[in-house]
Amino acid sequence: MSFTPEDHRYMARALQLARRGLYSTQPNPRVGCMIVRNGQIVGEGWHERAGEPHAEVHALHMAGESAHGADVYVTLEPCAHYGRTPPCANALVQAGVVRVVVAMVDPNPLVAGNGLRILQQAGIATASGLLESDARALNPGFISRMERNRPYIRIKMAMSLDGRTAMASGESVWITGEAARRDVQFLRAQAGAILTGIGTVLADDPSLNVRLTADALGIRGEVRQPVRVVLDSGLQFPLNAAMLKLSGDILIYTCSDNLAKITQLEAAGVRIRRFSGDKLVLANVMTALVDDGITEVHVEAGATLSGALVEQGFADELVIYLAPHLMGSDARALFNLPHLTQMRECIPLEIRDIRAVGQDWRMIISPKTRG
Amino acid sequence: MSFTPEDHRYMARALQLARRGLYSTQPNPRVGCMIVRNGQIVGEGWHERAGEPHAEVHALHMAGESAHGADVYVTLEPCAHYGRTPPCANALVQAGVVRVVVAMVDPNPLVAGNGLRILQQAGIATASGLLESDARALNPGFISRMERNRPYIRIKMAMSLDGRTAMASGESVWITGEAARRDVQFLRAQAGAILTGIGTVLADDPSLNVRLTADALGIRGEVRQPVRVVLDSGLQFPLNAAMLKLSGDILIYTCSDNLAKITQLEAAGVRIRRFSGDKLVLANVMTALVDDGITEVHVEAGATLSGALVEQGFADELVIYLAPHLMGSDARALFNLPHLTQMRECIPLEIRDIRAVGQDWRMIISPKTRG
Repeated sequence: MSFTPEDHRYMARALQLARRGLYSTQPNPRVGCMIVRNGQIVGEGWHERAGEPHAEVHALHMAGESAHGADVYVTLEPCAHYGRTPPCANALVQAGVVRVVVAMVDPNPLVAGNGLRILQQAGIATASGLLESDARALNPGFISRMERNRPYIRIKMAMSLDGRTAMASGESVWITGEAARRDVQFLRAQAGAILTGIGTVLADDPSLNVRLTADALGIRGEVRQPVRVVLDSGLQFPLNAAMLKLSGDILIYTCSDNLAKITQLEAAGVRIRRFSGDKLVLANVMTALVDDGITEVHVEAGATLSGALVEQGFADELVIYLAPHLMGSDARALFNLPHLTQMRECIPLEIRDIRAVGQDWRMIISPKTRG
Repeated sequence: MSFTPEDHRYMARALQLARRGLYSTQPNPRVGCMIVRNGQIVGEGWHERAGEPHAEVHALHMAGESAHGADVYVTLEPCAHYGRTPPCANALVQAGVVRVVVAMVDPNPLVAGNGLRILQQAGIATASGLLESDARALNPGFISRMERNRPYIRIKMAMSLDGRTAMASGESVWITGEAARRDVQFLRAQAGAILTGIGTVLADDPSLNVRLTADALGIRGEVRQPVRVVLDSGLQFPLNAAMLKLSGDILIYTCSDNLAKITQLEAAGVRIRRFSGDKLVLANVMTALVDDGITEVHVEAGATLSGALVEQGFADELVIYLAPHLMGSDARALFNLPHLTQMRECIPLEIRDIRAVGQDWRMIISPKTRG
């Protein structure tokens, strides 16, 4: 299947539209759609928020009668199922479009191709795979849930140049500068959930909320607060935690059966999910997150939880802010990786991007499969 | 003093010429010279090796009679003293040039301006400060000796992303890839000396020589082997060290008065410099390096010596190769900085450059004065 330069241009524009949903569509995917007739753009749309119309519906609405005989570019295969909205594949058939190009087919292997099949059966030409890797990068969580039944895990860390996150005493404020801390706010804002461990809650009493305005995020309406998930095997979460004072859901995963504490926390608006055993098992946490509708997770935690996620292969992406100073050899390590004793056991990484963010440097890193 | 675009162009070319001496002029400075008459380049030269003619002499030789009435661009103020060669300032006067532009005056405060004064007294127009910071960057060791009476210290380290240099066991080979190791060879080749500690010698038995060919370095003649300096308070240097098997000088700084060992090492071709006291003091090491004619030092040492150089403010530049893997929290630290316990004591750095070198990333860093 070959695509023309025009195909590339329209799909690139559809991807731009999709990106407008970066901070608002969770847990739905970000999707953009372009409708083009005789070389004229007649319709554009993107999915803005769960429960609201899909990208194709917006674009068809804008195109009106002009959709008849038009080409459609959509970043994700049109849906074929009746959900909160009727199937987009059917809407495209009804509108009389003649060709539909998708960047990627539905990542759910059970329904992949169903939307395209509806179109084909109606005599509409279809093509897929145009700018597919860009389209996949838009929806890592949605794709991870469909393909692996677990969320996409992005771990944010801030460290000194010598790989330290806090002094031995625990003193750690202001490792990175204001620009880096603001950059982190955008990462939080695009996540479905912010995950931390009880150790961090007890040590730092963080808010873990999004403090950017809708204007800063470029969205309409209210800023979505990602649910804050705390891994707390022993249910030590304090009833006076800073998190409780802010809007936004809190979800505690615990192994405790301390009903008095559970009742108190639930009265304070916290949701509790109980697991069997004495200590949370990360594989079970992954499944539970998906069950709780969470597909894209932003982790801000200490060396223990972050290290365990890396060591057990659940870390999909590390975003590390490197602050230009030395904290010394007694300071705290980036990741606790106690089982690592030989060079051949080292965890290989791929550094995908390094750039300056204010006075600091941000590295975007993917762990690699061990060779 | 204002410079024309032509002035900038010719000085930039003179800097390029000077750079050809990067691997060969030690301990002399790298200097380039351009002679231009009526908009025509009539002479070019650069200093190639200590004991051979200065850049100006080469350029004047090439220009011949055409130097009469010409403009001269030289990256360093022409010398005014009789050394191994007669003063270049006098040679320029004799050649009848009409204008001399220098990028920087002599960094030795005692003789700065003397060369320009000879020219001015002969009625030649002079100007200085054109592309000065580039000219200074060419000769950090030479300038450091003149301005601070100590060498310029560049510390090379290789670390994992989590700031580790070796496993707890000491296992450390192949932290970085081949491209980074080759890059280090160029750093070694431009240094006046390679400095290490006895700990590294005993643990790794390194060669610390330059293994690049003259072709790879772009130089004529033999590759200069920087002197290898080992800090060895207790004179534990082994008589079967790999270093002894290679050409190139070895200099051991020690506090030991073990005359038998000194005699053995001297018989093996090693020079020994004895210091009073039980343990080498870095400030005294700095003075001794200058006395030994060393101005640009490349350090490849362990966390103790490197850490001490950083902590005591002797590190002028860190070149850190970041390998894309995690070595874990039990692995060895980048710098031993045992006195660092509070955030306000952290050592601030400026990251001047980050770039990919093969699979690794190289950071060029300057420690900043503590604010």
